[in-house]
Order: sequence, then structure tokens, then C-alpha cells
Amino acid sequence: MNYFKVDRKNLEEEKRKLEKIYSEFKIKKFSLNMSRGKPSNEQLDLSKEILKNVDDDFVSSGFDVRNYGCLEGLPEARELMSHLMGCSAEDTIVGGGSSLSLMHDVIANFFIKGVNGCPPWSSQKVKFLCPSPGYDRHFQLCEFFGIEMIPIGMNEEGPDIEKIKSLISYDDSIKGIWCVPKYSNPEGIVYSDRVVRELANLKPRAKDFKILWDNAYSVHDLYEDIQIANIFDECVKSGNENLPIAFCSTSKITFASAGIAAIGCLGENFKSMRNYFSRKIVSFDKVNQLRHVKFLKNIENIKLHMKNHAKILRPKFEMILNKFKNEFSENKILKWTNPKGGYFISVYTYGSAKKVEKLCKEAGLVITPAGSSYPYGNDPDDSNIRIAPSYPSLEEIGKAVDLFCLCVKLSAIDKILGS
Amino acid sequence: MNYFKVDRKNLEEEKRKLEKIYSEFKIKKFSLNMSRGKPSNEQLDLSKEILKNVDDDFVSSGFDVRNYGCLEGLPEARELMSHLMGCSAEDTIVGGGSSLSLMHDVIANFFIKGVNGCPPWSSQKVKFLCPSPGYDRHFQLCEFFGIEMIPIGMNEEGPDIEKIKSLISYDDSIKGIWCVPKYSNPEGIVYSDRVVRELANLKPRAKDFKILWDNAYSVHDLYEDIQIANIFDECVKSGNENLPIAFCSTSKITFASAGIAAIGCLGENFKSMRNYFSRKIVSFDKVNQLRHVKFLKNIENIKLHMKNHAKILRPKFEMILNKFKNEFSENKILKWTNPKGGYFISVYTYGSAKKVEKLCKEAGLVITPAGSSYPYGNDPDDSNIRIAPSYPSLEEIGKAVDLFCLCVKLSAIDKILGS
Repeated sequence: MNYFKVDRKNLEEEKRKLEKIYSEFKIKKFSLNMSRGKPSNEQLDLSKEILKNVDDDFVSSGFDVRNYGCLEGLPEARELMSHLMGCSAEDTIVGGGSSLSLMHDVIANFFIKGVNGCPPWSSQKVKFLCPSPGYDRHFQLCEFFGIEMIPIGMNEEGPDIEKIKSLISYDDSIKGIWCVPKYSNPEGIVYSDRVVRELANLKPRAKDFKILWDNAYSVHDLYEDIQIANIFDECVKSGNENLPIAFCSTSKITFASAGIAAIGCLGENFKSMRNYFSRKIVSFDKVNQLRHVKFLKNIENIKLHMKNHAKILRPKFEMILNKFKNEFSENKILKWTNPKGGYFISVYTYGSAKKVEKLCKEAGLVITPAGSSYPYGNDPDDSNIRIAPSYPSLEEIGKAVDLFCLCVKLSAIDKILGS
Repeated sequence: MNYFKVDRKNLEEEKRKLEKIYSEFKIKKFSLNMSRGKPSNEQLDLSKEILKNVDDDFVSSGFDVRNYGCLEGLPEARELMSHLMGCSAEDTIVGGGSSLSLMHDVIANFFIKGVNGCPPWSSQKVKFLCPSPGYDRHFQLCEFFGIEMIPIGMNEEGPDIEKIKSLISYDDSIKGIWCVPKYSNPEGIVYSDRVVRELANLKPRAKDFKILWDNAYSVHDLYEDIQIANIFDECVKSGNENLPIAFCSTSKITFASAGIAAIGCLGENFKSMRNYFSRKIVSFDKVNQLRHVKFLKNIENIKLHMKNHAKILRPKFEMILNKFKNEFSENKILKWTNPKGGYFISVYTYGSAKKVEKLCKEAGLVITPAGSSYPYGNDPDDSNIRIAPSYPSLEEIGKAVDLFCLCVKLSAIDKILGS
């Protein structure tokens, strides 16, 4: 049924039918939280070996990993993680388990100290460009630091590069842009080589402008191994080595929150971040770094390991996408992305995201809050919802998507009927 | 020989004798770094079990430690660490492996956001009281944030409390004081109950004044188990729950830089820090938290474990102190502390700390840089040196202290002779 083509009476009839099914859902007391991109237990089990592989062998490159030292991380860990970002081991600092914390560290450092000879951000008006929809935690970081967010539209190639070029050319309070270049959160968009090159060639008015390159899903392919252009190479070519700061972690490769995370940057950025960390910590957890080096070995092996993740994730993505296709190919009240990797499917409701969220919640399904993929939680169309397929079982996903589709329909009918 | 009582000729004779021994040291190519308080391999081996104790059993309190969640830390880890600080588990956040990072986090949070309804520290003049000699990394943190440091004298009971009371009563730019209340770094001073109570009863003019309570050596007794007064209880009694923020870590209980660290604070401080962390990280490494809970079990067991550390450390401290006694009881060119725990011996040379450091270095012994225990590295008397006995073997310490004593004598003679 295409809701836009049936008459009011039939639509009201459809609504009653759907409400009956919805009330049955409510009675069944369904309970599922699909709000975050958490790996499933089955995925975590892929890395079980990591829990036992450092035992009597705790010296690496001459460092006893149980003791202080080696601020930038174990040499082998720096080498390993550098490949997830596309820089060299010398440009890599392996720091803790959270890439989000490292992003916070970068902003905190520039907020306190400034960079590239510019005053500290705490003493300047600071704005960030925020390709949207985007990652809610990036936006929350900006809010925490009082950074004004400017939404930038996304298209199939990545963020709207003309808009970016125009804005940064005259406004020197624009200090950064958030990028999730491969399988962007939540759209699953892969930046084209052209967009990467254009970003690397930006001529920002602010001398302390940074590209925050959150390469969270660099090896998280569901199908074939996709390569994006190397932001570091492109920036060096264009004489912009001070632009990019990259981040990665193994949270969705090994263990979430118990993996290792890294930051990659060149020249002055590296010096500044190294100095920041030298004041903040004696050294990071090298035991966990050694565990990861022993388990993940090298980038080729990581890619093999990720194929096992893909085997688990693919059917979950496909189940959801197939259900959407069945339910909404004709009835165009929902649009959705078809990601080839990453952790999310992004959908666009018929201007009723908040209502869908509410209906889902009342029937026991918690989804990512409507609007959270936009700066300040403000989706101008109240349309976008982020779906996180990874954690639940296939069976749970089946039920959850049935409920979700129902809520999408109910909220759309209400909107069309004007009730 | 008492250098102050012999005549010039004898002193010159003594100098030639010592220079001969010193040149022999130089020829032997001694090489040792005693600059930091690193645990020895023998100490690290005490916690070997921790590397294997999380294997197939990775669920704790219903949390899979391999996945996201549980921002404040595993309940059992919070309980365990709270006993090292003297607060309750509910007031404790177990965060990462570095207490220094948590101190940075507190200052960063108040720098960015402010606390207790006051403006962010980034927009205020901020000064800290720095009991001196003190921990060099505390002072480096202040320097990083541009916080002006005011040195405060130390006596046998702790910092000069009258001076503190007087300063904070009128200067509302004084926002904090660093305290290492048990076995202070580097003096090994244990704060008296009176001093703890006086601190808890401070009436600072600044509403956002904090006592940064770095309880780094709470269970690091070399002899008997010493208890200090509980800063939280005292602050609650005096209506000052917003004053104390405590820190601890297992870096010198289990593994240095691969242990777990915690922060303890009450009411508004806790709320503010929890909010800060919620923007900065999804969750900390709970695998390592679980490892520590399984290995350390409870505070009683930690104390038993620390007795094994003491067995290794005690002979090292005693060897150094005995050599000092033999060499300098009569010849009063060196004074030293007699710590009953902690990680350091603090010595006072005859106004020649920099010279001693230089002489040691030229003969292959790296000691903590002279002056580093003072704000801005400025020891007004050029006298204090921090000795870190933990890392080297007894045999190495023997040689190192012989060399050190020699350098102390040579530098003192030079000073007395005026050459």
C-alpha cells in the first residue's frame, strides 16, 4: 500500500489494523536496546585468545610491559596501529583504549595551549564543521568545549566540499572538521578520492584549522575490502601536513573499551600532542598493547580477522535491509542507506523520527534517540534515525525491525491524516 | 672527618683523595638510572598471576567486561579502590591506569567548565598551593595549565597549615592545594591527624577551591601499617564535602602503567567529574579492572600483598640510610629523611644539589634532576635531591650510593673551599 495514494478511509482502516498489531507487541513485553553500536558476544568471542596470550613473555622491544616507560607506545603497537590510519609508526601514538578520549585530548590540548603559534582555543571563538548526520559523540565533545557547530550536508561522495571551501576561506574562527571517512556514522558513506584530495588541499583562513579524521571503520568492511585515499599522503603533497589528525581503535576489532586506540599526526601536531601526553601520563597500558600485537600480528591478519566479524554482521544488516525493501519499496514513507560496512544503517522517516522513537520505546524497543546524529540534537526535518544492527541476535533483530516498521507506518499515517 | 672543623690544608688533601676515587668510578663506566620511582622486576613478579586470571570468566556483576558499558567502573573495582582513598564505592570512579591522568582530568574539567557555580578556570587567574619539596609531576601539570604555583613549607606533620590558612582566607585566585598525605613525595612525611583535620576545616575564599589528595602510597608501608585520618569523613563533618578529590592507583601495587587508577569525590564534584567522563569516553578498560579485582580481592589482601613489596624494598632503603649514617653522621654536609614507607628518600646537600647531579651523571649515575621537587624546578637553596631506591638491585644501589656520597663530599668541599 502506498499511503500517499490511498484515500482517507482506507488509511484509517490501515491505521486500525496496525494499532491492533502494535498493541499485541506491547502485551508481549518485548525488551531490547538497539541504541548503540555494540559488538555482539559472538564477535567478542573471536578475540578470546587475547585474554591469555601474555603470560610469562612480557618483554617487547626491550621494554618490560609491566613497568613505566615508552610514552608513545610499544614500537610494534605503533607499527600495527599506523596501518589503520595510513601514517607511519613514527607518527603514531598508541594511547589507552578509547579513540574518543584521544579526540578529547586533541581538543583539550589546543584549548589549553593552542597550536601552530595561535592563541589557545579557550581564548578564541571556535567553530567546527560538522558533516551531518554524523557521530553524536563528536557533537557532544564540541558541546562540552563550547565549540559552535556548523552542520554540513553529506552526499554520496562525503561532505559538501564546496560549502566547506567557501566557509573556511573567510571565517578564521572555524578550527576544525569532523570526518568519518570510511563508512561514516551513521550513513555508511565512503569518502571519494576526490573529496579526500579536496580536503587535503583546503586553504583555511585559520592557521590552526584541523581535519579530525576518525577512521573508526577503516577495516570494517561487510563485503569487499574498500580502500580510501590516504589523507596523510595527500596533505603532504599539498603542503598541508598540519591539517590531519587521525584516530583509530580496536574497540570493534577486539574488545569494546578494552582494546587499544591510537592517534596519528605529523610535524608540529605530533610534537604538540607528545608534549601534552608527557604532562598527563607516565605511560599507557603496554600489557594490553602487547596482547594486541601478539593477537592481531599485522594488517593482513587484521583483515582476515575482520572477515570473521563480517560473517556475523552481514546477515544482520541484510535482514534489516530486506525487511525495509519488502515493507517500503512501494510505500515510500521510509528511505534508508545501503552501507557496505561500518556499524549503522541510517533511515529517513516521513518527518516523524521522534514519534517513531516514542512508539518503539513504549513497546519495549530502545533505538538511538531521534536527532542525535545532528549538532545539538537538532534534525531540522525530524526524519533521521540511526539503526545499530550489531548487538542483538538475528531473531531479536527480526522482531525489532517488525516493530520498527510498524511504528514508522503508524507515525506516517498520523502525519498524513494530520491527527 | 667534619669538613667544617678541619683546616684548609687537610680539606685540600681530602679533596685530592676523593678525586682519585672519583676518577676510578669514571673509568669503571658505571651506568645506572635512579631518577624515577619505578618498581623492580622482583616487585612486578609478585603480581604475575594477574596476567592469566581472566580467561573464560569475563562476566562480572552482569557486565561482560569485553564490551562497552559501566562508565564509573565495575562495581567490585569501585569497591576495592574506594578503600585506598577512604571514600565509599559510590563516590569512586575507576578510570584507566594512571592517577596522574585523572588529576589532569580534574584540572581540565574545571579549566573548561568550572565547578561550584564559578566560571571556568580558563577565564580566571588560578593559583595552587604547592607543599615543597613535592611531586614534580604535580608541578608540571600546573605549568601545563598555566597555574601559578605558591610553594608551601613542609614540616614533620605535613604542610605549613598556618601559612595555608592565611593565604586562602583572602586570595580567591587560590583554587587548590596538592597533598600527598601519606609518605609524601619525596619527603616520606605522614600528615598528622591534626593537619588532616585543619585541611578539612579550611575556609577558602574561593568557592571552587579543591584539596587534591594524591593518596599514592596509602598502603605502601615499609614497616608497620600506618593509618592517617580520613579526609572525606573530616570534610563531611566540617560541611566541606566539596573540598577533597582523592586519587589512587595500583601502579606500585601491581604493574606500573598497567594497573588501575581511581578518583574519589563527593556530591557536586562527583557529578561534575561523571559528566566530564561521560563526554570523554564510552567506558574504561573493564578487563583490567576484573583482573585486578580477582587478584587483589579486598583491602586486607592488598595489605598482605604489600608486605611482600616491603620485604623487597626495605633492604634497599636501609642500605642507603645506613651508608648515609656511616658517611655523614659526623660530617654534617648531608641531611636526609628516614621514611617509613613510600618510594623516596629526600636528601639535603650542602647547597650543591646541581653540582652533585652533574658529578653523578659524569660518572654514569642518573639521579632525579636537582630542583625538580620544587615549583618551576626552583630549589631556593639548591640543596634537595630525591633518591629513588626501588628499581636497582641491592648490589647496584651499593655502588650507586658510594658514588653519590663521594659526589656529595666533593661538591661540599668545593663549596667550603670557595673554588
